[in-house]
Amino acid sequence: MTVTNAQNQTAQHEILMRGWLESYKPGKNPDAGGLIRVRGDNTIREAIVPKRVTGVEDIPTQSIVEVYGYAGEGDEPAIATDIEVLNRAEALPVDLRNIELSNDRYRHLHLRTPKLRAALMFRHFVQKYAREFLESRGYFHVHTPILTEASCVCSGDVFTFPYYNKKIATLIQSPWMYADSLVGSLEKVYALNPSFRREREPTTTHLVEIWQLQVDGAWETNETAMTLEEEFIRYMANMLRSNHADLYSMAGLSMAHLNDFEKSYPRITYDESVKRIRKLGFEMEYGDDFDDDALHALGKEFGSPFFVTTYPKRLKNFWFPQLEENPELTPSNDLFSHTGQGEIIGGGERVNSADQLASNLEYYGHDLDEFDWFLETRKYGCVPHAGFSVGFDRLTAMLMGVDHINKATVYPRLPQGGLRP
Amino acid sequence: MTVTNAQNQTAQHEILMRGWLESYKPGKNPDAGGLIRVRGDNTIREAIVPKRVTGVEDIPTQSIVEVYGYAGEGDEPAIATDIEVLNRAEALPVDLRNIELSNDRYRHLHLRTPKLRAALMFRHFVQKYAREFLESRGYFHVHTPILTEASCVCSGDVFTFPYYNKKIATLIQSPWMYADSLVGSLEKVYALNPSFRREREPTTTHLVEIWQLQVDGAWETNETAMTLEEEFIRYMANMLRSNHADLYSMAGLSMAHLNDFEKSYPRITYDESVKRIRKLGFEMEYGDDFDDDALHALGKEFGSPFFVTTYPKRLKNFWFPQLEENPELTPSNDLFSHTGQGEIIGGGERVNSADQLASNLEYYGHDLDEFDWFLETRKYGCVPHAGFSVGFDRLTAMLMGVDHINKATVYPRLPQGGLRP
Repeated sequence: MTVTNAQNQTAQHEILMRGWLESYKPGKNPDAGGLIRVRGDNTIREAIVPKRVTGVEDIPTQSIVEVYGYAGEGDEPAIATDIEVLNRAEALPVDLRNIELSNDRYRHLHLRTPKLRAALMFRHFVQKYAREFLESRGYFHVHTPILTEASCVCSGDVFTFPYYNKKIATLIQSPWMYADSLVGSLEKVYALNPSFRREREPTTTHLVEIWQLQVDGAWETNETAMTLEEEFIRYMANMLRSNHADLYSMAGLSMAHLNDFEKSYPRITYDESVKRIRKLGFEMEYGDDFDDDALHALGKEFGSPFFVTTYPKRLKNFWFPQLEENPELTPSNDLFSHTGQGEIIGGGERVNSADQLASNLEYYGHDLDEFDWFLETRKYGCVPHAGFSVGFDRLTAMLMGVDHINKATVYPRLPQGGLRP
Repeated sequence: MTVTNAQNQTAQHEILMRGWLESYKPGKNPDAGGLIRVRGDNTIREAIVPKRVTGVEDIPTQSIVEVYGYAGEGDEPAIATDIEVLNRAEALPVDLRNIELSNDRYRHLHLRTPKLRAALMFRHFVQKYAREFLESRGYFHVHTPILTEASCVCSGDVFTFPYYNKKIATLIQSPWMYADSLVGSLEKVYALNPSFRREREPTTTHLVEIWQLQVDGAWETNETAMTLEEEFIRYMANMLRSNHADLYSMAGLSMAHLNDFEKSYPRITYDESVKRIRKLGFEMEYGDDFDDDALHALGKEFGSPFFVTTYPKRLKNFWFPQLEENPELTPSNDLFSHTGQGEIIGGGERVNSADQLASNLEYYGHDLDEFDWFLETRKYGCVPHAGFSVGFDRLTAMLMGVDHINKATVYPRLPQGGLRP
C-alpha cells in the first residue's frame, strides 16, 4: 500500500498519520466510530476509527502509532482503516494534563504537553529574533568559556572544583568579562552562554543555571546602550506579536501584554526611583537594593518595562567607571519588567583605564592577581565601550507573560533543587 | 569641527578614523609625511601624517586614537590634520605579529591579530550557516543543561563537584541525552552547548571544553542521518566559498580544500575500513579503535570527508540499537575529516525500546538508577529516531583548513592547560 503523509492529504487520498497517541474516545452510539487524536509534525490530527478497526481502546496514550486510512470527502473527517503500534507505552505514571510545574520528577514527559512545547518554541524564536536584531546591528556571535580561574562574582556564590595540576576551576557567572575582552578584536560582540550562580533560596525569578545573553560594543555609551536595549526588547515583542499568535494560544496565554512593549520605556535615576518608591508607601533608604514588591509596584505605575539609571558605585560592580561630575555614581542602567519577572537587563559603560579598574577591583574586594589578564585588556589599548547582559530565561518569561521562570525553561536547575532529569 | 566617519569619506570631506593604532611608519625622506594605520570597523585604514602633525612616533601601538583629517582628491590617500589619543597603551609585552599560538598567556591580546580575528569570524559564520541549514529542515533550537547527575560518558573523564544538599553535580559531556529526550516534544531539535571532557593529554584535536552541536530527529534512520550530515557539511563549505574569500585571505589560508567538500562522501563499513587500513600498511585488529595516522592516510585516499558505518557494539555507547541481522553491529556512523582534524561527527540511530536500553546500560557498566528518567523516555512512547553530534571546534578547524584546534578556538581549554585568560 502506498500512503501519503497527512500534511499532503487530499480527498480520496490514502493518508498516514503518525506520532504520539494523544487520546482515543469511543463513539457515544455503540455503532458509531470512535475518534483518535495523534500528535505529529507539531500538530494534532484526528480521524474517525470505524467499529471494524478494533483494539484501539487498549493502546496506552503516548504510544507511537501509524494510522492508515483515507481523507474524508469535502469537510468530512479522515477515516482510519488500520492502526499499527510502533512503540507501545506503559501506563503513564502521572496525568500529563494536570501535572504541576513544580514537579520536576517527570519534566521529560511534561515537556510533551502543549504549554511546555510552546515554551520550547518560544525560546527558539526569542533566540532567533535576538540574533537577527543584533546581527543586523553588526554584532558578531562569540563563544566565551565556562571554566575559568576567577569569575566576576555578579550575584550569588560560585561553584568550584579541582582541575588539572591542583588548579581550581570556577564555573563562570557571566560571559561578560570574556565578551568584553573581545571588543578589542571585533568591536561589536554578543555571547549566549550558560552561566552559573549558587543562589541560596528558590524564587520565581532565579535559576542556578541560566542562559545569559551578553552584548558589548565599541564606542557605545550608557545612553546609546539603553536605546539599543529598548529597541532590542521592542523588536522581539513585535516579532512575537506579528508571527506567533498560535504559540500564545497553544500555551493558553494572552497576548495583551505585548502592547506594553510598544511604549517608550521610562528612564529614571536610582535617586528618583528611591523617591518614587517611598511615595508608593514602601520603606527604602538611599543606597538600599530594591525590594521586589516595590519594583513591581513601580512597574505597574509605568505600565511598561522601565530603566533605572545612574546607580551608586557601592551597589554596582568593578567594571563600571565613575561619573566625572560625581565619582560616587556610575553610568549604569538596569531594565526591569513591569510584570513581575524582575531585572531583565543590566547594562552600562565599562571602565576603560587600567588604574581605575585596579582601584575598582580593590574597592570590591577582589584579588588583583586573578584578574591580571583582564587588567591587560585595559593596559594595552582599550576602546571606550558599553554593553548589557540579558537574562535569557527571564526575558522569555516576560515576553511569554508567565509568572514563574520555570514556565519558560527546559530543564530548570532551581536553587536547592535536583539535577535529574 | 564636524567630521564624517571614514567609511563615508568622499574627496574634500573631513574624515575621522578611529580605533587601534596598528602602526606608524615615518617617511623615508625627512620632509615627507609618515603613514599611520588604524584598525576600526574591522578594517585597516591609512592616512599620511604630514610633518606638521608631531608626536605620532611616540604613541604606542594598540593605543586608541582618533585621526582627524580630510580625504585625498581622486586616488590620493587621506591626510591627517590632528591625532588624539583616547587611551594610551603601555608598551606591549609581546610582539603580537610573531606570537606563538601555544602561548595562551597573552591570548586576550593575540585575539586582536588578523589570524585570530578571522577565526572568531569563521566561528560566527559557521554557526550562522549551521543554524540556517538546520532550521530550513525544520529543526528547533533547544537549550539543554550543563549540570546533571549522570553524564553519558562519551569519552574522557567527567568533572564533578558538590552541589546543594550533599548532591554531586557532573558537568555534561554531551547535550545528546537531553536533546534526545526533546525529540518526544518537538520531533526535530538541535542544541549547541558547551560540553566538558577531562581528557588526559593535549593533542591537536582535543579540548576540555568543547562546543558541541547536537541534532536529533524523529523518523530519521542511520542512512537518512548520513545524508543530512553530508548535506550539512557541504552547505557550510559552499557558503564559506561563496561569501568569505576575504576571511581566508585575512587568515592567510588557502580556499583550495573547499573543493573537496563538493564530492560525494564515501561510506564504508567498519569492517571494510579495517581491511583498507591494513592494505595501507597499518596494523589493526577487528575491534580496535582507529589509529589517528591510519585514519589520516585513509582520508588522503578518498580526498574528501568520509563515513565509517556499522561499528561493532563494543566500540559504541549505550544509545545505539543493534542491527536485526547481527546484534554485534550497530546502525552507526562517524564522519571523519580527510585533512587531519579527526572525527567531526558521530551519529546513528537511537535505541527505542526500554528493555534494550536497560540491557545496553548494563552492558556498558552504567548504574540504571542514575538513568531512571531517561529510561522513562523509552517506556512512555518513544518515536523511532536518529541524529548526530558535531564537534563544533573541529568542524570550524576543518572548514578553515587549520591543523590545530586552538587555531579555530577563542579561549581554548587544553588538557593539562590553564584556565587564564
